[in-house]
Amino acid sequence: MAPAVPFASEHTTLHPVGVDAVTITGGLWADVQQLNREAILPHCAASLERVGWVENFRAAVRGTLARDRVGRLFTDSEVYKTMEAQAWELARTGDEDIAAAFTDYVSLLSQAQEDDGYLNTYYGYDGGPERWSDMEWGHELYCAGHLIQAAVAAARTEAPAAADLLVVARRLADLVCREFGAGARKTLCGHPEIETALVELYRVTGEARYLEQARIFVDRRGHRTLDDTMYKGRDYYQDNVPVREAEVLVGHAVRALYLAAGALDVAVETGDAELLEAVRRQYDRTLARRTYLTGGMGSNHHGETFGDDFELPSERAYAETCAAVASVHVAWRLLLATGDESYADVIERTLVNSVLSSPSQDGRSFFYVNALQRRAPGQAPEPGVPSLRRTDGMRAPWFTTSCCPTNLARTFASLGAYVATTDEAGVQVHQYVDGELSLGFGDGRAVRLSVSGGYPFAGEVRVRIDEADGSDFSLGLRVPAWAEDASVEIAGTSEPVGPGRVTLTRAWRAGDTVTLRLPVTPRFVHPDPRIDAVRGAVAIERGPFVYALESPDNPGLDLDLVSVDPRSTLTETPADPRLAGAVSVTAVGAVTAPSTSRWPYGPEVASTEQHPIDLTFIPYYLWANRGSSTMRVWVPRADLPA
Amino acid sequence: MAPAVPFASEHTTLHPVGVDAVTITGGLWADVQQLNREAILPHCAASLERVGWVENFRAAVRGTLARDRVGRLFTDSEVYKTMEAQAWELARTGDEDIAAAFTDYVSLLSQAQEDDGYLNTYYGYDGGPERWSDMEWGHELYCAGHLIQAAVAAARTEAPAAADLLVVARRLADLVCREFGAGARKTLCGHPEIETALVELYRVTGEARYLEQARIFVDRRGHRTLDDTMYKGRDYYQDNVPVREAEVLVGHAVRALYLAAGALDVAVETGDAELLEAVRRQYDRTLARRTYLTGGMGSNHHGETFGDDFELPSERAYAETCAAVASVHVAWRLLLATGDESYADVIERTLVNSVLSSPSQDGRSFFYVNALQRRAPGQAPEPGVPSLRRTDGMRAPWFTTSCCPTNLARTFASLGAYVATTDEAGVQVHQYVDGELSLGFGDGRAVRLSVSGGYPFAGEVRVRIDEADGSDFSLGLRVPAWAEDASVEIAGTSEPVGPGRVTLTRAWRAGDTVTLRLPVTPRFVHPDPRIDAVRGAVAIERGPFVYALESPDNPGLDLDLVSVDPRSTLTETPADPRLAGAVSVTAVGAVTAPSTSRWPYGPEVASTEQHPIDLTFIPYYLWANRGSSTMRVWVPRADLPA
Repeated sequence: MAPAVPFASEHTTLHPVGVDAVTITGGLWADVQQLNREAILPHCAASLERVGWVENFRAAVRGTLARDRVGRLFTDSEVYKTMEAQAWELARTGDEDIAAAFTDYVSLLSQAQEDDGYLNTYYGYDGGPERWSDMEWGHELYCAGHLIQAAVAAARTEAPAAADLLVVARRLADLVCREFGAGARKTLCGHPEIETALVELYRVTGEARYLEQARIFVDRRGHRTLDDTMYKGRDYYQDNVPVREAEVLVGHAVRALYLAAGALDVAVETGDAELLEAVRRQYDRTLARRTYLTGGMGSNHHGETFGDDFELPSERAYAETCAAVASVHVAWRLLLATGDESYADVIERTLVNSVLSSPSQDGRSFFYVNALQRRAPGQAPEPGVPSLRRTDGMRAPWFTTSCCPTNLARTFASLGAYVATTDEAGVQVHQYVDGELSLGFGDGRAVRLSVSGGYPFAGEVRVRIDEADGSDFSLGLRVPAWAEDASVEIAGTSEPVGPGRVTLTRAWRAGDTVTLRLPVTPRFVHPDPRIDAVRGAVAIERGPFVYALESPDNPGLDLDLVSVDPRSTLTETPADPRLAGAVSVTAVGAVTAPSTSRWPYGPEVASTEQHPIDLTFIPYYLWANRGSSTMRVWVPRADLPA
Repeated sequence: MAPAVPFASEHTTLHPVGVDAVTITGGLWADVQQLNREAILPHCAASLERVGWVENFRAAVRGTLARDRVGRLFTDSEVYKTMEAQAWELARTGDEDIAAAFTDYVSLLSQAQEDDGYLNTYYGYDGGPERWSDMEWGHELYCAGHLIQAAVAAARTEAPAAADLLVVARRLADLVCREFGAGARKTLCGHPEIETALVELYRVTGEARYLEQARIFVDRRGHRTLDDTMYKGRDYYQDNVPVREAEVLVGHAVRALYLAAGALDVAVETGDAELLEAVRRQYDRTLARRTYLTGGMGSNHHGETFGDDFELPSERAYAETCAAVASVHVAWRLLLATGDESYADVIERTLVNSVLSSPSQDGRSFFYVNALQRRAPGQAPEPGVPSLRRTDGMRAPWFTTSCCPTNLARTFASLGAYVATTDEAGVQVHQYVDGELSLGFGDGRAVRLSVSGGYPFAGEVRVRIDEADGSDFSLGLRVPAWAEDASVEIAGTSEPVGPGRVTLTRAWRAGDTVTLRLPVTPRFVHPDPRIDAVRGAVAIERGPFVYALESPDNPGLDLDLVSVDPRSTLTETPADPRLAGAVSVTAVGAVTAPSTSRWPYGPEVASTEQHPIDLTFIPYYLWANRGSSTMRVWVPRADLPA
């Protein structure tokens, strides 16, 4: 049986391990998983009932959809993502309430599915829109993909009713193959997602037709089959240029990234090195030119799209939570496929900044958009009403399009899967979480490790061998690119290590300990000068965390008028106690007297009269947890003229 | 009879003059009016037929709307704006073809109007949506407003069939008063426009109920009557905060500016100084904090909305053509109401940059969006298809929402109205166009002036008195805020004059000449440091023209990698001959070697290896007339570290 991970393949450089191979016992990721179990996941399940999106399936069973269907056309997918989250959570905890809820959902889906395998509460009933009548915007195959992913997760984690759900998924997938196969209708879904789902279903079932259908969808895209859009034309759904020919990710960011993940899945399973390299090249250019410091992707609210190269405005960053989740999917596939450790850096940066900024501290409200600057205090969402708005600088409990909370739930429940990999020669630890790792590798060998030290808050990572068979094997440890002057210590001997992966090969024995020292002291970061939006500004990072200046820590300051001196010493201080033990960073800055001109452009640089001040920064992901506020990640340099 | 101008009142500090009072004989504005007459206006009329938006009215007459109605819900308004343009053009030229076309339209509308006065081809027929069923998005009162404005223009210009059109407009306005008056349904239109139209209709007809209805609509707005939206909530249509309480313009820029114009009209006619001051304060803050160098307004594609203060990204500037037109309406009303000459600066800046950038040189394609930077070459629109896209860096002949071409047509046809005003003591010239002005003022006095000199291309403005009665009167001349070291010469004596209005009072006689010297030498302009998007960058202006760096004039350069030295001398050179005799400006700059890092953020400022180059700038409004290109107005400073 394949390991219980999102994405599994026999054909990658590194091999994934199951979510049950990693027990996270403390630290940031343990807190996140606890929040997910106690708050986010129950909040998702309760919200789905409250807004009627589960009831839609019951209406399908009753045959009353024409009367009772509520919500937008893609609400089914939120139920499926919640089920996927439940499956991962069951593997982790075996929670009986979750098991019961999951089994109920499966039963409901089995009853709601039509005889020919079709399952979607928005289409295909008397009085409703016809099946496959809106390939551009209809999200039918997108929803099918999420159902399949839930079934794959359940199968891999051996969840209760997994077999029943797999039957549902296969019947639906078989219908998709009949309807959209080589001899059938030559079109595709406006929102990629089915591609990766079908490859995963192939991996679980061994049915090659699912892989072939995924390949067809990937190759069919980019030939201008779908209609024009007002959001950058057919780039919006990546239907302007074939996947193999594209140079960079374009259009709707979540669509582009889900497609990239699916194309990588197809490439890996079919041995298509050209396709793999094409997607890698696109993603690499996207990282170098279209990605926010937080790892967030998507610069434009209009169409939720990527901008042009270096178009990365802070205040209008879209950086959708789901795009960050999807970027983790792509980076993970590339890490496995290529072994390039830098993709693990991307995963970490994206998770602890652009993903983790979405949920509130109580796990019951969420950012849809993860901007890097907020100039005016946000407005609270209207209580009890799914929010139409995604941009107000305050989190909302639920949205009319509520993809983000459920995407968080499935991501957080499966975090353990991203911690380590194996290959023939040994094991690699990519993410340092306090906990225990039980890893099989090579030809039936195994090792048990403990990791401790409180990373990423602290920089000393201790890896202890708890069990090993005494033979030689390699222990790979990631050294993040930001970690200058890192060192690794074994048996009292310390050596400097550079960014990438340090691979330590020896006859490891129980009790052996490796200490990796990563300097998590705060540091200034400068942008590429082509990013106009942050020219002349710097940001602060500490370890993998991006920091932000938020108004509650800097009372009385107009954040549009402050600057920071990158020559100043950064000092660590305890953060506001409301921020859960986080570390603040203080820098020397200045505040400028505002111009009172009636026109904001003129022959001279406006008054730069400044007086010095201390500025207090907090980890970006914690902002907006203390009421309505202003915030900025990038701060103008006090050592340059304005 | 009121003068033939857009906006006329007895209650303003300065009084407008009719479009027929000013004959533009040469120079920029004459070229624009010729382009409008020969290309833009015929293009609008032909396009309206081609896409079926006139035919919709014929279908209404036939009673076949259920079968035949085409286009989006606001297409009627494009016919009305075209009619308004025709009315102004008739006053200017008396063109017989235009007169015939206008008369045909009037006849069609008279037949299409329903018995109770209702007129809108999208609503209220069997099988179509009900009247007033979608106040948020339906645009019914918006369309009614444009019909009324066409009728007002026709009445003021004594166009053929003007009386018939006024009957149609009054019947519709009477219906609006019945349906939305104090005792009727307490709601309002999602798109302001009816407000200013009703006040103008009151001015033409003297019927106080139209003014009262406009006042009701203005006061009714801001009380959260309309539904929430995903575009900044009810701020989108200014229904979140009452007009009197708002601090700055918010939401959809065209809506906000049309509302401001209507509120000013109400304020002026009802003597409501508080309302006038409130709108002036909002507009002033908008100018100081939410306006592009070009005068363009609206920072966000998403919802076509204003951004927060100082949120003015160059590459994603929306700066809709219609918002620029609307800003001219507001500035004109404030100039008349307050006499503050700085609003004439705003009119000029907005017209010659953000409005004039919309039409192509041939007047047959248009920018909907007037961005200040284009990083990647634009895509040509699909031939023969109304464009869904508004953002591709290339102009399109027509749009599915095609508000901009017709708005240009009515603006250009009425340009003469913005040239001069009068008061009891004399006359004021606000815009210098080569031509003849025949101005009545005070108690039946009159003066005839000639203006020459080729401004704004050249800086010497010669004003000659051609006829005067020999008594004392004042001649006011605008000195733009950018004009340092300006001077005025009378009878061989020259004196320095500062920004604002220079008022010259004497017994002017025929043959007297005033020469105003405005230094139109190119200059660097710096932004307020709070505008993050252009920090560390400068722009170039020459006279009222904003300049831009466009790729055709700078072959082989990546405009993302250039910088300009604001200490360098700016040199004027003839522009590319394809740019109609324009003046180019050359500056010394540098080109930087690009970073090849895989991640665009790091501990050091990226390589700043530079080599010097010459950069050639052209007037912004002429860009994108030589095929697909890249462009930027703001250029990073070469004298600062990157």
